[in-house]
Amino acid sequence: MTPHADLLARELAGIETFLRQETDRLHPLVRPVAAHVLGAGGKRFRPMLCVLMARLLGHQGENVYPLAASLEMLHSATLLHDDILDGANLRRGKEAAHIAFSRSEAILAGDALLALANRLVAEYGLPRLVVVLSEAVLRTAVGEIQEIAAAREHDLDDAGYMEIITGKTAYLIQASSSSGAILADASAAAEARAESFGLNLGIAFQLVDDALDYTSPSEISGKPAGSDLREGKLTLPLLLLLESLPQSERDALRLRIKGNALSEAEIEGLVSRIRDEGFAEATRQRAADYVDKAREALDGLPKGWAADVLAQSLHYVLARKK
Amino acid sequence: MTPHADLLARELAGIETFLRQETDRLHPLVRPVAAHVLGAGGKRFRPMLCVLMARLLGHQGENVYPLAASLEMLHSATLLHDDILDGANLRRGKEAAHIAFSRSEAILAGDALLALANRLVAEYGLPRLVVVLSEAVLRTAVGEIQEIAAAREHDLDDAGYMEIITGKTAYLIQASSSSGAILADASAAAEARAESFGLNLGIAFQLVDDALDYTSPSEISGKPAGSDLREGKLTLPLLLLLESLPQSERDALRLRIKGNALSEAEIEGLVSRIRDEGFAEATRQRAADYVDKAREALDGLPKGWAADVLAQSLHYVLARKK
Repeated sequence: MTPHADLLARELAGIETFLRQETDRLHPLVRPVAAHVLGAGGKRFRPMLCVLMARLLGHQGENVYPLAASLEMLHSATLLHDDILDGANLRRGKEAAHIAFSRSEAILAGDALLALANRLVAEYGLPRLVVVLSEAVLRTAVGEIQEIAAAREHDLDDAGYMEIITGKTAYLIQASSSSGAILADASAAAEARAESFGLNLGIAFQLVDDALDYTSPSEISGKPAGSDLREGKLTLPLLLLLESLPQSERDALRLRIKGNALSEAEIEGLVSRIRDEGFAEATRQRAADYVDKAREALDGLPKGWAADVLAQSLHYVLARKK
Repeated sequence: MTPHADLLARELAGIETFLRQETDRLHPLVRPVAAHVLGAGGKRFRPMLCVLMARLLGHQGENVYPLAASLEMLHSATLLHDDILDGANLRRGKEAAHIAFSRSEAILAGDALLALANRLVAEYGLPRLVVVLSEAVLRTAVGEIQEIAAAREHDLDDAGYMEIITGKTAYLIQASSSSGAILADASAAAEARAESFGLNLGIAFQLVDDALDYTSPSEISGKPAGSDLREGKLTLPLLLLLESLPQSERDALRLRIKGNALSEAEIEGLVSRIRDEGFAEATRQRAADYVDKAREALDGLPKGWAADVLAQSLHYVLARKK
């Protein structure tokens, strides 16, 4: 049972209402594309984080929702663009927007959502909010470019991998958390803790994602185990396996992955090894280390129902099965 | 001879220096893509407009350059994304970024430039600047989606055409002008004039562009006359020709354009008719009407060297040959 389910439901309703209202006001040609990606049943993870951090630090009232909704818009904009990069056909079990509509409409609706989010955030009259979110979007784009470059060069190491996941995933989660603190007019110390909470939570979130790619059965995840490997994406579980091999074997395997030369049997063999030799588990363990850092940051913040829920979310990040 | 060439050169140097400095600070993977599109020899039309309007309204000093440079970044970001939509291979005579690099890098570098521009503008601590520019980017994206939809549906009329060019081109030029006024802390009346100046100048600019597509010889423009028609794009010169035809002939021609069924000889015939029967000239004439409106707005603003240059730019918009 989720604690404070009634309070959470009320906040979620506030976020959803505002999102729907803003989507309805978009131009009729943009609206369906935006509604497609925004209505696709996400967890509203980033908006909820923002709302909870704002509540925790004393901000009450409804005017948190435009900020929270903006975070979902920024995230959705990056999803619209990412799916084109990845050539992904599905997003959260639904047809990706660039398939359901067109590539052009997906690119432009992404730009429109980025701009709308900026406008909504600017209307608070707190320039630091715009600075923090813009910086996060910039770093997200850089992280994604780094990921593409790494897939091409195939010289990724552990440090490079951590830099990529911090960029492409963690900074926007960090900004979700710290923007809630900024809105609540928190002290510099509290804001720094909110920032650390979000950053470490975000890193843990992506680490678990990358571990699940090797361990989650396809009936649960909706995609075959090892899909990152199939796409030539080097994530931590695979990097740890490579690291464990003798140099010559490692180089040979890197070359075969880079050249997209692995047979289905080889892929399945690698997936099993990563699972059986504990590399997926080691990835989860690293996620647990980051969750500990996030918990430490949270411990220095005020108590209350919002803190309870955030603590619970740390548990959820590690426990989730898909 | 351009009036005040020395003053202009100094302002341009300020813009270029700031642009180069910010480009150099980008991540090494984003920098070359950004430098490619930002260094491609544009006229710095939007930044100069912003600087001139700020000067005209009494703002001196160097801190106009980040704002001015941001307008070029926003414009470049839309170019990066547009070229992908259009499948354009060239941009200002150079290979388009999505060809020189990759589609993914062009999308992400565009996102990075949008975000960087927002951050730079937010750092002024004037939320209205962010609101005005974000709204312009939003409207630009909507205008581009409208243009794509119109090319698919082929039911465009004169009013729809005007709405599209206002969206895809004029709003960002309007924002360039009005943001200069906002930075200069102009009165509401002066800001409204700056806004009107930019909007009407922007509309005129695109009208002339669309006229030139039918009249500029390929030796000057670098592309064959009628390239909009070849791409199935309905612009004003063609709409005016269609309007002049009897209903049945008009419907038949619309269908053939929509079905991409025109032979090269037919295209050349249409291009000649549009030129010879005065439809390109009528488009220029409409541009002249908007230039008059822009001049009217300018006449109500203070005099001085910046006003001289802006008046001169109105002349240039109509006189340009490519």
